[in-house]
Amino acid sequence: MSTMLQGIAASNGIAIAKAYRLIEPDLTVTKNEIADREAEVSRFKAAMEESKSELQLIRDRADQELGADKAAIFDAHLLVLSDPELINPIEDQIHSEGLNAEVALRNTADMFINMFEQMDNEYMKERAADIRDVTKRVLSHLLGVKIPNPSMIAEEVIIVAEDLTPSDTAQLNRKFVKGFTTDIGGRTSHSAIMARSMEIPAVVGTKEATSTIQNGEIIIVDGLNGQIHINPTPELLKQYEEIHSQYEKQKAEWAKLVNEKTVSLDGHHVELAANIGTPKDLKGVIENGGEGIGLYRTEFLYMGRDQLPTEEEQFKSYREVLEGMSGKPVVVRTLDIGGDKELPYLNLPKEMNPFLGYRAIRLCLEEQEIFRTQLRALLRASTYGNLKIMFPMIATLQEFRQAKTILEEEKQNLVASGVQVSDSIELGIMVEIPATAVLADQFAKEVDFFSIGTNDLIQYTMAADRMNETVSYLYQPYNPSILRLIKMVIDAAHKEGKWAGMCGEMAGDEIAIPILLGLGLDEFSMSATSILKARSLVHQLSKQEMETLAKDVLQLSTNDEVIEAVKKVVTF
Amino acid sequence: MSTMLQGIAASNGIAIAKAYRLIEPDLTVTKNEIADREAEVSRFKAAMEESKSELQLIRDRADQELGADKAAIFDAHLLVLSDPELINPIEDQIHSEGLNAEVALRNTADMFINMFEQMDNEYMKERAADIRDVTKRVLSHLLGVKIPNPSMIAEEVIIVAEDLTPSDTAQLNRKFVKGFTTDIGGRTSHSAIMARSMEIPAVVGTKEATSTIQNGEIIIVDGLNGQIHINPTPELLKQYEEIHSQYEKQKAEWAKLVNEKTVSLDGHHVELAANIGTPKDLKGVIENGGEGIGLYRTEFLYMGRDQLPTEEEQFKSYREVLEGMSGKPVVVRTLDIGGDKELPYLNLPKEMNPFLGYRAIRLCLEEQEIFRTQLRALLRASTYGNLKIMFPMIATLQEFRQAKTILEEEKQNLVASGVQVSDSIELGIMVEIPATAVLADQFAKEVDFFSIGTNDLIQYTMAADRMNETVSYLYQPYNPSILRLIKMVIDAAHKEGKWAGMCGEMAGDEIAIPILLGLGLDEFSMSATSILKARSLVHQLSKQEMETLAKDVLQLSTNDEVIEAVKKVVTF
Repeated sequence: MSTMLQGIAASNGIAIAKAYRLIEPDLTVTKNEIADREAEVSRFKAAMEESKSELQLIRDRADQELGADKAAIFDAHLLVLSDPELINPIEDQIHSEGLNAEVALRNTADMFINMFEQMDNEYMKERAADIRDVTKRVLSHLLGVKIPNPSMIAEEVIIVAEDLTPSDTAQLNRKFVKGFTTDIGGRTSHSAIMARSMEIPAVVGTKEATSTIQNGEIIIVDGLNGQIHINPTPELLKQYEEIHSQYEKQKAEWAKLVNEKTVSLDGHHVELAANIGTPKDLKGVIENGGEGIGLYRTEFLYMGRDQLPTEEEQFKSYREVLEGMSGKPVVVRTLDIGGDKELPYLNLPKEMNPFLGYRAIRLCLEEQEIFRTQLRALLRASTYGNLKIMFPMIATLQEFRQAKTILEEEKQNLVASGVQVSDSIELGIMVEIPATAVLADQFAKEVDFFSIGTNDLIQYTMAADRMNETVSYLYQPYNPSILRLIKMVIDAAHKEGKWAGMCGEMAGDEIAIPILLGLGLDEFSMSATSILKARSLVHQLSKQEMETLAKDVLQLSTNDEVIEAVKKVVTF
Repeated sequence: MSTMLQGIAASNGIAIAKAYRLIEPDLTVTKNEIADREAEVSRFKAAMEESKSELQLIRDRADQELGADKAAIFDAHLLVLSDPELINPIEDQIHSEGLNAEVALRNTADMFINMFEQMDNEYMKERAADIRDVTKRVLSHLLGVKIPNPSMIAEEVIIVAEDLTPSDTAQLNRKFVKGFTTDIGGRTSHSAIMARSMEIPAVVGTKEATSTIQNGEIIIVDGLNGQIHINPTPELLKQYEEIHSQYEKQKAEWAKLVNEKTVSLDGHHVELAANIGTPKDLKGVIENGGEGIGLYRTEFLYMGRDQLPTEEEQFKSYREVLEGMSGKPVVVRTLDIGGDKELPYLNLPKEMNPFLGYRAIRLCLEEQEIFRTQLRALLRASTYGNLKIMFPMIATLQEFRQAKTILEEEKQNLVASGVQVSDSIELGIMVEIPATAVLADQFAKEVDFFSIGTNDLIQYTMAADRMNETVSYLYQPYNPSILRLIKMVIDAAHKEGKWAGMCGEMAGDEIAIPILLGLGLDEFSMSATSILKARSLVHQLSKQEMETLAKDVLQLSTNDEVIEAVKKVVTF
């Protein structure tokens, strides 16, 4: 009998493969009586050797498959394993106190970890993390339990995890990972965004994937309907192979649209752009026929490291993206850190409600050196393509004016020192705070464009944390209040001859696209993998009919009524 | 030389008195060598005796000044002090292990506290709190440090604290407390609301009151300008005595308005109502000429106790308020718990962003037994006055419809069992979520009234936690986006022949009142102590002129521009 779990469809497609549980095992240690202290030291040495050869293998594979920078992490781990400052005290404790190896290791490692963590030095804090990782590995050998080694995966698998962190996904070999399923998260969680960027099916928020699925079980990830099937029956497998092949056929149809314009039935053109996190995502954008980058999330440059990126590092990334897009528009969002995205090395204060706190432009206007460095890198890169700069989390006109002034200052400084800077950089804002949508007519007089960030706009407008499962029923993209705010923004832009885009999840959503087309949205920025499907949908819609639909749904009273109204008019 | 601290003016008036620091002292214990174990036991016994007579005094005074319910807390503490289960192990540890009394007490108390806290029983958890309090007191005698005994205050003082919790303020003797000053908080923090309800001047958010002010120093609380003066010079004292007497004169002028109608220069009537937390607040409402209760915050009934209030307890409170207002309107808000207001005995999940989480109506629609009990108590009380019921944190029409259905069910059940229920209970919602303001026209078709909750509406609309100092510059009541949302709500209500009120801080604010009058707000609900001043202001304003002002400020672009525009038209 196969078992079914219902979750949230986070990335389209069907995947069928063995489960790979990416889950921390229990590494609790207990104090045991040691009869033979010499034998215990040997047992410890053996575990160290096993860990070393395992790490050597992981390091080599990481070097081949993921690149030298990922392999370097494991070099650091290997160094720890050979460090006599760590090894000698452990062996001493076994010898002199008769402790079992697990406890001696735990004691010694904890001492070093505490010591390094208390140092006010980021390099030393990183060493604490290395010791923690290595200790886990050696303990796993002592305790005879397996820890997952995601970078060693060498066959096709579905990753099963509670949730996936950026560092988990960095270690995954994209060649073998066919799908994801997680216990928690929603369509806008990191795992979901990652799955779409890797173009693999994913179902998140299943609540019980990790408690139900065993390593090696065959599972089907149905990213179209948000279902996970465990140990499917032969009939079900056949059925899904059929769905899979139909979906592949459909994708092949969509693929034909890669070089076509995005034009409605009645000849209205809109721009379908892509959201990216790093220059590596460009390949997917081009393969999927993206007409531009509508959102380059620069915070990935700042994450998974122990200090701020230099101006030069940033410049190189920005230039790479601008050049890669060969003159097509590239909207770069300045640093959006804080909220759910932390940078440990910035030592930001703990907040009671981080989503309503010190983040994005609020932080950049305070920590101006960080902001100015990024702006200089952007200005220097501006001559390599069609750059547009966008400030996140703008709530008031003062904030926009202040950010603009800082940009102008940096521009003048660069020009004064002989650096070439483009003269046609458009300057826009994310509209993701209700106040900004309501006051869009005032903002439209001063900005060059708007990009509506629906993920945040919805959570603030509904006063519901989109990461909080208890109130997730209030994350309602089609709630008429959201649609009205979107209309205010688009109308305000057009009145001043500016353009309005959208870079939230909603821009690639098939229920939303007809309404947004009707409201006059100019640019839709989405996961690259959603572009061709969206283009195919726009081809089937009449702008004029969608205008009527949009007008009607604005007068409805609930999210569900809007979905119903769209489905009445549009056949998917 | 006198020192000045600038803070936030939280409650009007001038107070001059000695400082009383309400601050936890350092009660860290360290292990000492004990030479004479018998002497140490005696030292412990002496500290117990001192604590006992101190508690006895506190108990008696609490009984006289604050009532028997407050005194009962100290009876529980006295019981702990006589409990051999606690005392014997401590004396044993001193005797047999040679521990010093502080360590022996700490060890034993911690053991009991842990044990009681782990029990799944609210009564036992309360016992843990009692032991914790008593341990502090005995330790203070052992260590020779003073802990504050707020209920023992017997001379006029200004309370100096980091912040004031509800349990701190419950112990304060209103007769002697002349003012507050705190390090943290803003106009909407608990301390500020409390000070206004006690009608004493307060300055909050000074950042350094506790680090600057010593016990017994003379300080001036200038609640008009948000300033604290420490050790004022004789000249400054004289100056402030002058300001104080002028302010008292002004208050005497306002007091003459207590029985007057609130009518603008050109004859437009608005209702000035009061926000209350308990039936005790009624006295202030009547003394200040409140025309109704615009917000009865029922959550105080649920706080500071270890289990839910019964239907009967609630019924009595609601009836007391309804009867006390003799037929004037009383708007009761159903339970608004969660967010910054926790109820330990409900064991709610910890949330990453509690302000965007599981609270108020969201919780009531899930925990229906809690909700239904409150609704039954309200329905039963409805025949004793002019009851209006209001649901908090409504984000969608479904939520309102569901809440209304539940109320209807309870009403029918009561009527079926022969209980009298009023037939004219108006049913409204708080408008404190941006979505609800934007969609007010749809809501207006189904509700009887709106009450705009600006404290939350502003924080969600600006996406800025109002408790977070780092982003407090974004808490902008006059931001045109906020004013536009308020206009949407008022217009929507009037279009359907309903009324619109406001029960946030803004309703009593002198900059806001002219705009709100111009926008057509029907009811202004504020701290009782703000009513007479507000009435005096409305008497000086022309509704028609304020309509023009309101129209103008809606087209401005920033909070500061609005303040300036109001000050140009209105003289305060």
